[in-house]
Amino acid sequence: MTVRDPDWEARVREGFAAQGLMRSFAAEIVSLEPGLAVLAAPITPAVSQHHGFAHAALAFALGDNAGGFAATSLLGPGESVVTVEQKVNFLAPAQGERVVAEGRVERAGRRLSVVRAEVFAEGPEGRVAVALMLGTMAVMAAR
Amino acid sequence: MTVRDPDWEARVREGFAAQGLMRSFAAEIVSLEPGLAVLAAPITPAVSQHHGFAHAALAFALGDNAGGFAATSLLGPGESVVTVEQKVNFLAPAQGERVVAEGRVERAGRRLSVVRAEVFAEGPEGRVAVALMLGTMAVMAAR
Amino acid sequence: MTVRDPDWEARVREGFAAQGLMRSFAAEIVSLEPGLAVLAAPITPAVSQHHGFAHAALAFALGDNAGGFAATSLLGPGESVVTVEQKVNFLAPAQGERVVAEGRVERAGRRLSVVRAEVFAEGPEGRVAVALMLGTMAVMAAR
Amino acid sequence: MTVRDPDWEARVREGFAAQGLMRSFAAEIVSLEPGLAVLAAPITPAVSQHHGFAHAALAFALGDNAGGFAATSLLGPGESVVTVEQKVNFLAPAQGERVVAEGRVERAGRRLSVVRAEVFAEGPEGRVAVALMLGTMAVMAAR
Repeated sequence: MTVRDPDWEARVREGFAAQGLMRSFAAEIVSLEPGLAVLAAPITPAVSQHHGFAHAALAFALGDNAGGFAATSLLGPGESVVTVEQKVNFLAPAQGERVVAEGRVERAGRRLSVVRAEVFAEGPEGRVAVALMLGTMAVMAAR
Repeated sequence: MTVRDPDWEARVREGFAAQGLMRSFAAEIVSLEPGLAVLAAPITPAVSQHHGFAHAALAFALGDNAGGFAATSLLGPGESVVTVEQKVNFLAPAQGERVVAEGRVERAGRRLSVVRAEVFAEGPEGRVAVALMLGTMAVMAAR
Repeated sequence: MTVRDPDWEARVREGFAAQGLMRSFAAEIVSLEPGLAVLAAPITPAVSQHHGFAHAALAFALGDNAGGFAATSLLGPGESVVTVEQKVNFLAPAQGERVVAEGRVERAGRRLSVVRAEVFAEGPEGRVAVALMLGTMAVMAAR
Repeated sequence: MTVRDPDWEARVREGFAAQGLMRSFAAEIVSLEPGLAVLAAPITPAVSQHHGFAHAALAFALGDNAGGFAATSLLGPGESVVTVEQKVNFLAPAQGERVVAEGRVERAGRRLSVVRAEVFAEGPEGRVAVALMLGTMAVMAAR
């Protein structure tokens, strides 16, 4: 994966910090590499669905952002991405301490990037895969 | 759409009320009919993404729930649904006063239901379609 | 839906005629309007899956093309589309005489169009919905 | 991946041989393992789209079958699968000598299996990824 902007990491961290939803979820950046972003957020009653597990939208939010920031890491200066579409398959209920999403770039294009994310629930007994995502990001030109 | 549980509406409202995430989003049920659920939530800084619009996960959360509760409205007593998968295409940035999701059942099966959702952003200048969703719900048997 | 190329219909018919796969499937154009394309192909043993129904790929081929040609009908002169992604949910086995796909444009953008398709199986006893599709087309500039 | 039917491979080969569409496409089984199926078909004018590349439906047909047969390999005696839904992202035009699809099981459930497929185009100059798929198979009970 080729980096085109030496300031890519600062830009990703800035974009993450500017998202009110990530603050609402008490989410954090676990790690960043070119073409890879790992995000996490705690499982609390504030993000529950009606069976008491974390809501599907928490996995979606982290996986969508992980894929988006993975794509962002490979952009040129001033460029940004928006989500065109995402598809998510749920594998198991998200229960435990936190949800972790790993986003990867599958194809980095000039106009479109294809991204994938794996989402896990982590707890005392280990890590369980809870969702798989496959989506498209559109590259917005520098202004 | 055939109703199989006379208490379907109470059950849907109970399920909605039990979701911590819907409370966190200050979401509300706009209307319910057999096979149709309309939900809404205000657009606030707490749900923003980095361009200041509502995060894609808000549209996802409301659309996923609208489809899920639309499917729930057609279940037999004691049955419930979980999301198998969802696909969402984004049409426009979600800006304005609130996000509204209309979920409909396309096919109500014994084991699986296919649902669709249209998500809108509403503001002073009217209503704009911001997302389309197409997904699958699995029916969980009564215990 | 605004037409930008007065020759849109000839261009769609030309594109359809140039597809070897459509000839292999003995497919035909049922009707065309700006933003709408309806295609059909007979259900024969040559397109069967292992339970004797039409293979999912026949519904996909017709639905993908119906959406693609619906998008093409709204392009400017010299532009064309390629499929970025498609999602298909299957509702019922495709059996009977022919498969019919209706493709519609949900959002016609300068760079991307969002399309939807409904696919039916038709036989002596009527019409049954067999698949729903939701996808993205990328607009390729005129050369 | 746990095999539950000692005759799984014969059953997969029988299912493949019973598909008229696979014969129409001159497709073949490249390799089979529990939880993995690799299929291929030649790129010919009979499967082309209007730019002369292989039609998206060929990648879909092989990827859908590769995922479905991967899931079938892990079933109990008498069980079979049908496709609930598939999502496919296209990465590059499919050109060269043949299309190869590798299907894998991500989660093998009692009622539903989640499958993934990678689709490649192979030619004199090597192998290019042309599509990624993520889908759901429903398990049909033995009769």
